[in-house]
Amino acid sequence: MSTESYILHEDPRSGNCYKIKLTAALLGIPLETRQYDIIQGETRTPEFLDQVNANGRIPVLQIDSAEETRFLPESNAACWYLASGSHLIPDDRFAQADMLRWMFFEQYNHEPNVATLRFWLRFVGEANLSDQQRAQIMAKRIAGQDALALMNDNLESRAFMAGDAPTLADMALFPYTHVAEEGGFGLGNYPHIEAWIARIKDLPGFTAME
Amino acid sequence: MSTESYILHEDPRSGNCYKIKLTAALLGIPLETRQYDIIQGETRTPEFLDQVNANGRIPVLQIDSAEETRFLPESNAACWYLASGSHLIPDDRFAQADMLRWMFFEQYNHEPNVATLRFWLRFVGEANLSDQQRAQIMAKRIAGQDALALMNDNLESRAFMAGDAPTLADMALFPYTHVAEEGGFGLGNYPHIEAWIARIKDLPGFTAME
Repeated sequence: MSTESYILHEDPRSGNCYKIKLTAALLGIPLETRQYDIIQGETRTPEFLDQVNANGRIPVLQIDSAEETRFLPESNAACWYLASGSHLIPDDRFAQADMLRWMFFEQYNHEPNVATLRFWLRFVGEANLSDQQRAQIMAKRIAGQDALALMNDNLESRAFMAGDAPTLADMALFPYTHVAEEGGFGLGNYPHIEAWIARIKDLPGFTAME
Repeated sequence: MSTESYILHEDPRSGNCYKIKLTAALLGIPLETRQYDIIQGETRTPEFLDQVNANGRIPVLQIDSAEETRFLPESNAACWYLASGSHLIPDDRFAQADMLRWMFFEQYNHEPNVATLRFWLRFVGEANLSDQQRAQIMAKRIAGQDALALMNDNLESRAFMAGDAPTLADMALFPYTHVAEEGGFGLGNYPHIEAWIARIKDLPGFTAME
Protein backbone atom coordinates (compact mmCIF):
# COMPACT_ATOMS: atom_id res chain seq x y z
CA MET A 1 0.00 0.00 0.00
CA SER A 2 2.87 2.35 0.73
CA THR A 3 4.13 1.87 -2.84
CA GLU A 4 0.89 3.17 -4.35
CA SER A 5 -0.29 6.69 -4.98
CA TYR A 6 -3.75 7.87 -5.90
CA ILE A 7 -5.27 10.49 -8.18
CA LEU A 8 -8.99 11.16 -7.95
CA HIS A 9 -10.59 12.31 -11.22
CA GLU A 10 -13.49 14.40 -9.94
CA ASP A 11 -15.92 17.29 -10.06
CA PRO A 12 -15.83 18.92 -6.60
CA ARG A 13 -19.60 19.58 -6.70
CA SER A 14 -20.28 15.84 -6.92
CA GLY A 15 -21.17 14.01 -3.73
CA ASN A 16 -20.00 10.79 -5.38
CA CYS A 17 -16.50 12.28 -5.55
CA TYR A 18 -16.71 13.57 -1.99
CA LYS A 19 -17.39 10.01 -0.74
CA ILE A 20 -13.89 9.02 -1.81
CA LYS A 21 -12.25 12.16 -0.41
CA LEU A 22 -14.02 11.65 2.91
CA THR A 23 -12.96 7.99 3.09
CA ALA A 24 -9.34 8.89 2.29
CA ALA A 25 -9.36 11.71 4.85
CA LEU A 26 -10.69 9.48 7.65
CA LEU A 27 -8.00 6.91 6.82
CA GLY A 28 -5.20 9.46 6.43
CA ILE A 29 -4.54 8.44 2.81
CA PRO A 30 -3.10 11.21 0.57
CA LEU A 31 -5.17 11.83 -2.56
CA GLU A 32 -4.24 14.05 -5.47
CA THR A 33 -7.15 15.40 -7.54
CA ARG A 34 -7.81 16.26 -11.21
CA GLN A 35 -10.89 18.35 -11.74
CA TYR A 36 -13.47 18.24 -14.51
CA ASP A 37 -16.66 20.22 -15.13
CA ILE A 38 -19.36 17.64 -15.87
CA ILE A 39 -21.85 20.31 -16.96
CA GLN A 40 -19.35 21.41 -19.65
CA GLY A 41 -19.01 17.79 -20.82
CA GLU A 42 -15.39 17.47 -19.76
CA THR A 43 -15.84 13.77 -18.91
CA ARG A 44 -17.20 13.01 -22.40
CA THR A 45 -14.14 14.04 -24.40
CA PRO A 46 -12.42 11.35 -26.52
CA GLU A 47 -9.33 11.57 -24.28
CA PHE A 48 -11.30 10.98 -21.09
CA LEU A 49 -13.34 8.12 -22.58
CA ASP A 50 -10.22 6.47 -23.95
CA GLN A 51 -7.82 6.93 -21.05
CA VAL A 52 -9.83 7.29 -17.84
CA ASN A 53 -13.35 5.84 -18.09
CA ALA A 54 -15.22 4.55 -21.15
CA ASN A 55 -18.44 5.15 -19.16
CA GLY A 56 -17.81 8.93 -19.35
CA ARG A 57 -18.39 9.41 -15.66
CA ILE A 58 -16.54 10.61 -12.63
CA PRO A 59 -15.35 9.81 -10.03
CA VAL A 60 -12.58 7.52 -11.16
CA LEU A 61 -9.78 6.51 -8.81
CA GLN A 62 -6.40 6.27 -10.55
CA ILE A 63 -4.08 3.86 -8.75
CA ASP A 64 -0.40 4.28 -9.60
CA SER A 65 2.29 1.84 -8.59
CA ALA A 66 5.81 1.20 -9.86
CA GLU A 67 4.41 -1.58 -12.08
CA GLU A 68 1.25 -0.11 -13.54
CA THR A 69 -1.50 2.49 -13.64
CA ARG A 70 -5.04 1.27 -13.08
CA PHE A 71 -8.38 3.06 -13.15
CA LEU A 72 -11.32 2.23 -10.88
CA PRO A 73 -14.72 3.81 -11.66
CA GLU A 74 -17.77 3.78 -9.36
CA SER A 75 -17.53 5.78 -6.16
CA ASN A 76 -18.46 2.99 -3.79
CA ALA A 77 -15.96 0.57 -5.37
CA ALA A 78 -13.21 3.20 -5.02
CA CYS A 79 -14.12 3.64 -1.34
CA TRP A 80 -13.94 -0.14 -0.92
CA TYR A 81 -10.47 -0.23 -2.47
CA LEU A 82 -9.10 2.55 -0.26
CA ALA A 83 -10.68 1.15 2.92
CA SER A 84 -9.70 -2.46 2.25
CA GLY A 85 -8.32 -3.92 5.49
CA SER A 86 -9.27 -0.84 7.54
CA HIS A 87 -11.75 -0.32 10.38
CA LEU A 88 -14.23 1.21 7.90
CA ILE A 89 -15.07 -2.30 6.64
CA PRO A 90 -16.31 -4.65 9.40
CA ASP A 91 -14.83 -8.15 9.53
CA ASP A 92 -18.02 -9.88 10.63
CA ARG A 93 -19.72 -11.65 7.73
CA PHE A 94 -23.22 -10.31 8.32
CA ALA A 95 -22.05 -6.80 9.24
CA GLN A 96 -20.03 -6.62 6.02
CA ALA A 97 -22.99 -7.70 3.89
CA ASP A 98 -25.27 -5.30 5.79
CA MET A 99 -22.83 -2.45 5.07
CA LEU A 100 -22.91 -3.34 1.37
CA ARG A 101 -26.69 -3.52 1.56
CA TRP A 102 -26.79 0.20 2.42
CA MET A 103 -24.21 1.00 -0.26
CA PHE A 104 -26.36 -0.69 -2.94
CA PHE A 105 -29.44 1.05 -1.50
CA GLU A 106 -27.55 4.32 -1.88
CA GLN A 107 -26.94 3.76 -5.58
CA TYR A 108 -30.43 2.46 -6.36
CA ASN A 109 -32.86 4.25 -4.03
CA HIS A 110 -31.07 7.32 -2.72
CA GLU A 111 -28.68 8.80 -5.29
CA PRO A 112 -31.06 8.77 -8.31
CA ASN A 113 -33.58 10.77 -6.27
CA VAL A 114 -31.85 12.82 -3.57
CA ALA A 115 -28.72 13.62 -5.62
CA THR A 116 -30.48 14.03 -8.95
CA LEU A 117 -32.95 16.60 -7.61
CA ARG A 118 -30.06 18.54 -6.07
CA PHE A 119 -28.23 18.45 -9.40
CA TRP A 120 -31.30 19.52 -11.37
CA LEU A 121 -32.52 22.25 -9.01
CA ARG A 122 -29.22 23.66 -7.77
CA PHE A 123 -26.83 23.25 -10.73
CA VAL A 124 -28.88 22.85 -13.92
CA GLY A 125 -31.71 25.13 -12.78
CA GLU A 126 -35.41 24.30 -12.97
CA ALA A 127 -35.92 26.61 -15.96
CA ASN A 128 -33.34 24.65 -17.95
CA LEU A 129 -34.81 21.19 -17.33
CA SER A 130 -36.37 19.23 -20.19
CA ASP A 131 -40.10 18.51 -20.03
CA GLN A 132 -39.24 14.89 -19.37
CA GLN A 133 -37.03 15.80 -16.41
CA ARG A 134 -39.64 18.18 -15.03
CA ALA A 135 -42.26 15.41 -15.24
CA GLN A 136 -40.08 13.22 -13.00
CA ILE A 137 -39.62 15.73 -10.16
CA MET A 138 -42.64 14.59 -8.18
CA ALA A 139 -41.77 10.88 -8.39
CA LYS A 140 -38.17 11.59 -7.41
CA ARG A 141 -39.37 13.77 -4.52
CA ILE A 142 -41.49 10.93 -3.12
CA ALA A 143 -38.83 8.25 -3.69
CA GLY A 144 -36.18 10.46 -2.10
CA GLN A 145 -38.40 11.06 0.95
CA ASP A 146 -38.92 7.29 1.23
CA ALA A 147 -35.15 6.73 1.14
CA LEU A 148 -34.56 9.36 3.83
CA ALA A 149 -37.35 7.90 5.99
CA LEU A 150 -35.78 4.44 5.77
CA MET A 151 -32.41 5.86 6.82
CA ASN A 152 -34.04 7.76 9.68
CA ASP A 153 -35.76 4.59 10.93
CA ASN A 154 -32.50 2.66 10.74
CA LEU A 155 -30.65 5.36 12.69
CA GLU A 156 -33.24 5.34 15.46
CA SER A 157 -31.54 2.30 17.01
CA ARG A 158 -27.98 2.56 15.67
CA ALA A 159 -25.37 5.31 15.84
CA PHE A 160 -24.20 4.63 12.28
CA MET A 161 -25.85 3.06 9.25
CA ALA A 162 -24.36 -0.41 9.69
CA GLY A 163 -23.96 -0.53 13.48
CA ASP A 164 -22.24 1.20 16.35
CA ALA A 165 -19.17 2.33 14.45
CA PRO A 166 -18.73 4.24 11.18
CA THR A 167 -18.30 2.17 8.02
CA LEU A 168 -18.34 2.77 4.28
CA ALA A 169 -22.14 2.73 4.44
CA ASP A 170 -21.88 6.11 6.18
CA MET A 171 -19.28 7.40 3.72
CA ALA A 172 -21.60 6.45 0.86
CA LEU A 173 -24.73 8.02 2.34
CA PHE A 174 -23.41 11.12 4.10
CA PRO A 175 -22.39 13.21 1.05
CA TYR A 176 -25.79 13.64 -0.64
CA THR A 177 -27.79 13.39 2.58
CA HIS A 178 -26.09 16.31 4.34
CA VAL A 179 -26.79 18.59 1.36
CA ALA A 180 -30.26 17.17 0.64
CA GLU A 181 -31.82 20.56 1.37
CA GLU A 182 -30.18 21.87 -1.81
CA GLY A 183 -32.53 19.51 -3.63
CA GLY A 184 -35.53 20.64 -1.60
CA PHE A 185 -35.48 17.82 0.97
CA GLY A 186 -35.87 19.43 4.38
CA LEU A 187 -34.17 17.34 7.04
CA GLY A 188 -36.30 18.61 9.94
CA ASN A 189 -38.56 15.57 9.65
CA TYR A 190 -35.63 13.21 10.10
CA PRO A 191 -34.17 13.90 13.55
CA HIS A 192 -32.10 10.70 13.64
CA ILE A 193 -30.46 11.70 10.36
CA GLU A 194 -29.65 15.13 11.79
CA ALA A 195 -28.00 13.55 14.85
CA TRP A 196 -26.06 11.15 12.59
CA ILE A 197 -24.82 14.06 10.44
CA ALA A 198 -23.46 15.69 13.60
CA ARG A 199 -21.74 12.43 14.58
CA ILE A 200 -20.08 12.10 11.15
CA LYS A 201 -18.83 15.69 11.32
CA ASP A 202 -17.23 14.89 14.68
CA LEU A 203 -15.19 11.95 13.38
CA PRO A 204 -11.40 12.40 13.67
CA GLY A 205 -10.03 13.36 10.26
CA PHE A 206 -13.40 14.54 8.91
CA THR A 207 -13.15 16.82 5.90
CA ALA A 208 -15.98 19.03 4.63
CA MET A 209 -17.37 19.02 1.09
CA GLU A 210 -15.98 21.92 -0.94
CA MET B 1 -22.02 -21.70 8.06
CA SER B 2 -23.33 -25.24 8.38
CA THR B 3 -25.53 -24.13 11.27
CA GLU B 4 -27.40 -21.62 9.12
CA SER B 5 -30.33 -22.07 6.79
CA TYR B 6 -31.69 -19.64 4.24
CA ILE B 7 -35.09 -18.57 2.96
CA LEU B 8 -35.28 -16.32 -0.08
CA HIS B 9 -38.30 -14.00 -0.16
CA GLU B 10 -38.78 -13.57 -3.90
CA ASP B 11 -40.86 -13.07 -7.02
CA PRO B 12 -39.62 -15.69 -9.54
CA ARG B 13 -40.04 -13.22 -12.45
CA SER B 14 -37.48 -10.90 -10.86
CA GLY B 15 -33.92 -11.08 -12.11
CA ASN B 16 -32.80 -9.58 -8.81
CA CYS B 17 -34.12 -12.70 -7.07
CA TYR B 18 -32.58 -14.99 -9.66
CA LYS B 19 -29.12 -13.50 -8.91
CA ILE B 20 -29.29 -15.01 -5.43
CA LYS B 21 -30.63 -18.37 -6.61
CA LEU B 22 -27.90 -18.59 -9.24
CA THR B 23 -25.19 -17.74 -6.69
CA ALA B 24 -26.53 -20.34 -4.26
CA ALA B 25 -26.78 -22.97 -7.02
CA LEU B 26 -23.19 -22.44 -8.17
CA LEU B 27 -22.02 -22.74 -4.56
CA GLY B 28 -24.24 -25.73 -3.74
CA ILE B 29 -26.04 -23.87 -0.95
CA PRO B 30 -29.63 -25.01 -0.27
CA LEU B 31 -32.17 -22.20 -0.48
CA GLU B 32 -35.82 -22.37 0.47
CA THR B 33 -38.10 -19.81 -1.21
CA ARG B 34 -41.25 -17.83 -0.28
CA GLN B 35 -43.00 -16.32 -3.24
CA TYR B 36 -44.73 -12.94 -3.60
CA ASP B 37 -46.44 -11.25 -6.54
CA ILE B 38 -44.98 -7.74 -6.70
CA ILE B 39 -47.56 -6.61 -9.27
CA GLN B 40 -50.32 -7.50 -6.77
CA GLY B 41 -48.55 -5.48 -4.07
CA GLU B 42 -47.73 -8.50 -1.92
CA THR B 43 -44.47 -6.90 -0.74
CA ARG B 44 -46.28 -3.76 0.46
CA THR B 45 -48.53 -5.39 3.04
CA PRO B 46 -48.13 -4.30 6.69
CA GLU B 47 -46.86 -7.80 7.59
CA PHE B 48 -44.15 -7.76 4.94
CA LEU B 49 -43.06 -4.19 5.76
CA ASP B 50 -42.95 -4.97 9.46
CA GLN B 51 -41.37 -8.41 9.43
CA VAL B 52 -39.32 -8.80 6.27
CA ASN B 53 -38.31 -5.46 4.71
CA ALA B 54 -39.42 -1.94 5.60
CA ASN B 55 -38.33 -0.94 2.08
CA GLY B 56 -41.21 -3.03 0.65
CA ARG B 57 -38.96 -4.75 -1.86
CA ILE B 58 -37.81 -8.21 -2.71
CA PRO B 59 -35.48 -10.05 -2.75
CA VAL B 60 -34.74 -10.41 0.93
CA LEU B 61 -32.49 -13.18 2.22
CA GLN B 62 -33.66 -14.59 5.55
CA ILE B 63 -30.77 -16.07 7.53
CA ASP B 64 -31.81 -18.47 10.28
CA SER B 65 -29.46 -19.80 12.91
CA ALA B 66 -29.99 -21.36 16.33
CA GLU B 67 -29.48 -17.92 17.89
CA GLU B 68 -31.44 -15.58 15.66
CA THR B 69 -33.28 -14.76 12.45
CA ARG B 70 -31.88 -11.94 10.36
CA PHE B 71 -33.07 -10.33 7.13
CA LEU B 72 -30.79 -9.02 4.41
CA PRO B 73 -32.34 -6.91 1.62
CA GLU B 74 -30.59 -5.88 -1.63
CA SER B 75 -29.84 -8.65 -4.09
CA ASN B 76 -26.14 -7.92 -4.46
CA ALA B 77 -25.61 -7.78 -0.69
CA ALA B 78 -27.36 -11.15 -0.33
CA CYS B 79 -25.07 -12.62 -3.02
CA TRP B 80 -22.07 -11.22 -1.14
CA TYR B 81 -23.22 -12.86 2.08
CA LEU B 82 -23.74 -16.28 0.49
CA ALA B 83 -20.47 -16.15 -1.48
CA SER B 84 -18.38 -14.85 1.41
CA GLY B 85 -15.13 -16.84 1.52
CA SER B 86 -15.89 -18.65 -1.77
CA HIS B 87 -14.20 -18.57 -5.18
CA LEU B 88 -16.91 -16.21 -6.45
CA ILE B 89 -15.22 -13.32 -4.58
CA PRO B 90 -11.58 -12.79 -5.59
CA ASP B 91 -9.01 -12.31 -2.80
CA ASP B 92 -6.89 -9.79 -4.67
CA ARG B 93 -7.58 -6.25 -3.48
CA PHE B 94 -7.98 -4.66 -6.91
CA ALA B 95 -9.92 -7.59 -8.37
CA GLN B 96 -12.36 -7.47 -5.45
CA ALA B 97 -12.94 -3.72 -5.89
CA ASP B 98 -13.26 -4.17 -9.66
CA MET B 99 -15.90 -6.86 -9.10
CA LEU B 100 -17.83 -4.49 -6.83
CA ARG B 101 -17.41 -1.78 -9.47
CA TRP B 102 -19.50 -3.87 -11.90
CA MET B 103 -22.03 -4.70 -9.19
CA PHE B 104 -22.59 -0.99 -8.46
CA PHE B 105 -22.72 -0.33 -12.22
CA GLU B 106 -25.41 -3.00 -12.43
CA GLN B 107 -27.60 -1.26 -9.87
CA TYR B 108 -27.07 2.26 -11.22
CA ASN B 109 -26.65 1.98 -15.00
CA HIS B 110 -28.02 -1.43 -16.00
CA GLU B 111 -30.96 -2.47 -13.84
CA PRO B 112 -32.94 0.82 -13.96
CA ASN B 113 -32.86 0.66 -17.77
CA VAL B 114 -32.53 -2.94 -18.98
CA ALA B 115 -34.64 -4.50 -16.21
CA THR B 116 -37.18 -1.68 -15.98
CA LEU B 117 -38.01 -1.78 -19.70
CA ARG B 118 -38.45 -5.56 -19.48
CA PHE B 119 -40.78 -5.12 -16.50
CA TRP B 120 -42.78 -2.37 -18.20
CA LEU B 121 -43.05 -3.98 -21.64
CA ARG B 122 -43.34 -7.65 -20.70
CA PHE B 123 -45.19 -7.64 -17.36
CA VAL B 124 -47.03 -4.32 -16.99
CA GLY B 125 -47.76 -3.94 -20.70
CA GLU B 126 -47.13 -0.80 -22.76
CA ALA B 127 -50.85 0.06 -22.81
CA ASN B 128 -50.94 0.15 -19.00
CA LEU B 129 -47.96 2.48 -18.53
CA SER B 130 -48.48 5.97 -17.18
CA ASP B 131 -47.69 8.92 -19.48
CA GLN B 132 -44.69 9.64 -17.32
CA GLN B 133 -43.37 6.09 -17.73
CA ARG B 134 -44.01 6.15 -21.47
CA ALA B 135 -42.06 9.41 -21.74
CA GLN B 136 -39.03 7.69 -20.20
CA ILE B 137 -38.87 4.73 -22.60
CA MET B 138 -36.55 6.41 -25.10
CA ALA B 139 -34.09 7.60 -22.46
CA LYS B 140 -34.06 4.16 -20.82
CA ARG B 141 -33.58 2.51 -24.23
CA ILE B 142 -30.48 4.63 -24.90
CA ALA B 143 -29.05 4.26 -21.39
CA GLY B 144 -29.64 0.49 -21.50
CA GLN B 145 -27.86 0.22 -24.86
CA ASP B 146 -24.94 2.19 -23.40
CA ALA B 147 -24.75 -0.21 -20.45
CA LEU B 148 -24.79 -3.24 -22.74
CA ALA B 149 -22.14 -1.67 -25.00
CA LEU B 150 -19.87 -1.09 -21.99
CA MET B 151 -20.30 -4.73 -20.92
CA ASN B 152 -19.60 -5.91 -24.46
CA ASP B 153 -16.39 -3.86 -24.65
CA ASN B 154 -15.27 -5.21 -21.28
CA LEU B 155 -15.94 -8.80 -22.38
CA GLU B 156 -13.88 -8.38 -25.54
CA SER B 157 -10.69 -8.98 -23.56
CA ARG B 158 -11.93 -10.98 -20.56
CA ALA B 159 -13.90 -14.21 -20.26
CA PHE B 160 -15.94 -12.90 -17.32
CA MET B 161 -16.86 -9.40 -16.13
CA ALA B 162 -14.11 -9.10 -13.52
CA GLY B 163 -11.40 -11.29 -15.07
CA ASP B 164 -10.72 -14.83 -16.21
CA ALA B 165 -12.99 -16.57 -13.72
CA PRO B 166 -16.63 -16.09 -12.78
CA THR B 167 -17.36 -13.79 -9.82
CA LEU B 168 -20.39 -12.09 -8.30
CA ALA B 169 -20.10 -9.42 -11.00
CA ASP B 170 -21.33 -12.07 -13.44
CA MET B 171 -24.07 -13.27 -11.08
CA ALA B 172 -25.28 -9.66 -10.77
CA LEU B 173 -25.26 -8.91 -14.50
CA PHE B 174 -26.32 -12.21 -16.08
CA PRO B 175 -29.98 -12.32 -14.94
CA TYR B 176 -31.33 -9.20 -16.67
CA THR B 177 -28.83 -9.33 -19.53
CA HIS B 178 -29.76 -12.79 -20.73
CA VAL B 179 -33.46 -11.81 -20.93
CA ALA B 180 -32.80 -8.28 -22.24
CA GLU B 181 -34.66 -9.10 -25.45
CA GLU B 182 -37.89 -9.24 -23.40
CA GLY B 183 -37.35 -5.50 -22.90
CA GLY B 184 -36.62 -4.92 -26.57
CA PHE B 185 -32.83 -5.00 -26.35
CA GLY B 186 -31.59 -7.21 -29.18
CA LEU B 187 -28.32 -8.87 -28.22
CA GLY B 188 -27.13 -9.42 -31.82
CA ASN B 189 -25.06 -6.25 -31.66
CA TYR B 190 -23.18 -7.49 -28.61
CA PRO B 191 -21.33 -10.66 -29.68
CA HIS B 192 -19.05 -10.71 -26.64
CA ILE B 193 -22.11 -10.65 -24.38
CA GLU B 194 -23.61 -13.56 -26.31
CA ALA B 195 -20.42 -15.60 -25.87
CA TRP B 196 -20.34 -14.72 -22.16
CA ILE B 197 -23.97 -15.84 -21.73
CA ALA B 198 -23.00 -19.21 -23.21
CA ARG B 199 -20.04 -19.45 -20.81
CA ILE B 200 -22.25 -18.72 -17.79
CA LYS B 201 -24.77 -21.36 -18.86
CA ASP B 202 -21.92 -23.87 -19.02
CA LEU B 203 -20.79 -23.31 -15.43
CA PRO B 204 -21.07 -26.39 -13.17
CA GLY B 205 -24.18 -26.07 -11.03
CA PHE B 206 -25.84 -23.48 -13.31
CA THR B 207 -29.58 -23.17 -12.83
CA ALA B 208 -31.92 -21.48 -15.30
CA MET B 209 -34.34 -18.64 -14.50
CA GLU B 210 -37.91 -19.91 -14.03
